[in-house]
Amino acid sequence: MGRWEPNARGRLGQAALELYIERGYEQTTVAEIAKRAGLTERTFFRHFADKREVLFYGSSTLQDHLVDAVAGAPDSAAPIDAIAGAVESVGVVFQGRRESARQRQSVIAATAELRERELIKLASLSAALADTLRRRGVTEPAASLAAEAGIAVFKIAFERWISGPGEPDLSQLVRESFDELKAVMAGR
Amino acid sequence: MGRWEPNARGRLGQAALELYIERGYEQTTVAEIAKRAGLTERTFFRHFADKREVLFYGSSTLQDHLVDAVAGAPDSAAPIDAIAGAVESVGVVFQGRRESARQRQSVIAATAELRERELIKLASLSAALADTLRRRGVTEPAASLAAEAGIAVFKIAFERWISGPGEPDLSQLVRESFDELKAVMAGR
Repeated sequence: MGRWEPNARGRLGQAALELYIERGYEQTTVAEIAKRAGLTERTFFRHFADKREVLFYGSSTLQDHLVDAVAGAPDSAAPIDAIAGAVESVGVVFQGRRESARQRQSVIAATAELRERELIKLASLSAALADTLRRRGVTEPAASLAAEAGIAVFKIAFERWISGPGEPDLSQLVRESFDELKAVMAGR
Repeated sequence: MGRWEPNARGRLGQAALELYIERGYEQTTVAEIAKRAGLTERTFFRHFADKREVLFYGSSTLQDHLVDAVAGAPDSAAPIDAIAGAVESVGVVFQGRRESARQRQSVIAATAELRERELIKLASLSAALADTLRRRGVTEPAASLAAEAGIAVFKIAFERWISGPGEPDLSQLVRESFDELKAVMAGR
């Protein structure tokens, strides 16, 4: 272990985002990220496999959070309510992180390789949620459909959250988007 | 123009699928595909940009079909009904192509690069459908939610179609999956 570096991961993440926005993702090197964060490349590689992973290490936290929330829903909860409750609760995970979420999204939107990676992560998330529902006894195709609906709502609420004016509440946007999807599916 | 080569595109597509399954996608070259089809590499490149495109050239046909169907739905159709009608009608596009769809899916499932490409194509399809709904006067987020629901149903019905026993009807599976999603969203 090297010397103690307070919040190295957060500092590297912030430095990487800044550089990706200033110079572009392709043009930024790990050496530059480490330098901007006042840390060494060695420290960078203790936290991240590569410069792409800096943008995606939060995905596993998000997945764990969603899977735990679905698994922990009351036995009596309908599949879609277990999913909706879980997706609503991600507001907590992103609390105070709207600006960095917005920066991250602009970097991802600019690079095909990163957009593909983001889609893969969302597809894995959907598969993990469907799997959790099946372990709760939900049959197919209901499990996969409820999971896909949840991820669609998350995606759309998240886009509204980072692009909307003012300081919208993510959980509130998730609730509204679920209600909207219910209305859409009911033919309204 | 070279000499007339009857159904060159179809022959190249079939030869490519066979080779991808026999040897693996990575290991197959364009020269081998052309040879198997009894055609030249030059002919291959008149039809496809590269060996990956052989697996995805159908996507634009599918997208055109779906967009036309949504655009052509009666003015009175609710957004989800315009989408459901369009997705149901893809049964015609895939008529008699279940075996090659199944082979194609097994090749894609085996290679990360191809899985990513497939997700990109589905995301573009969803964006194109949302755009078509907006041109019909549907507001956001309803347009994006209806489009995402349609693609989720298509994906799940398609998986059931290629993996199910017997000779299931794709349009019928789409209808059932839409009904199932409606029931799921209604909390059943």
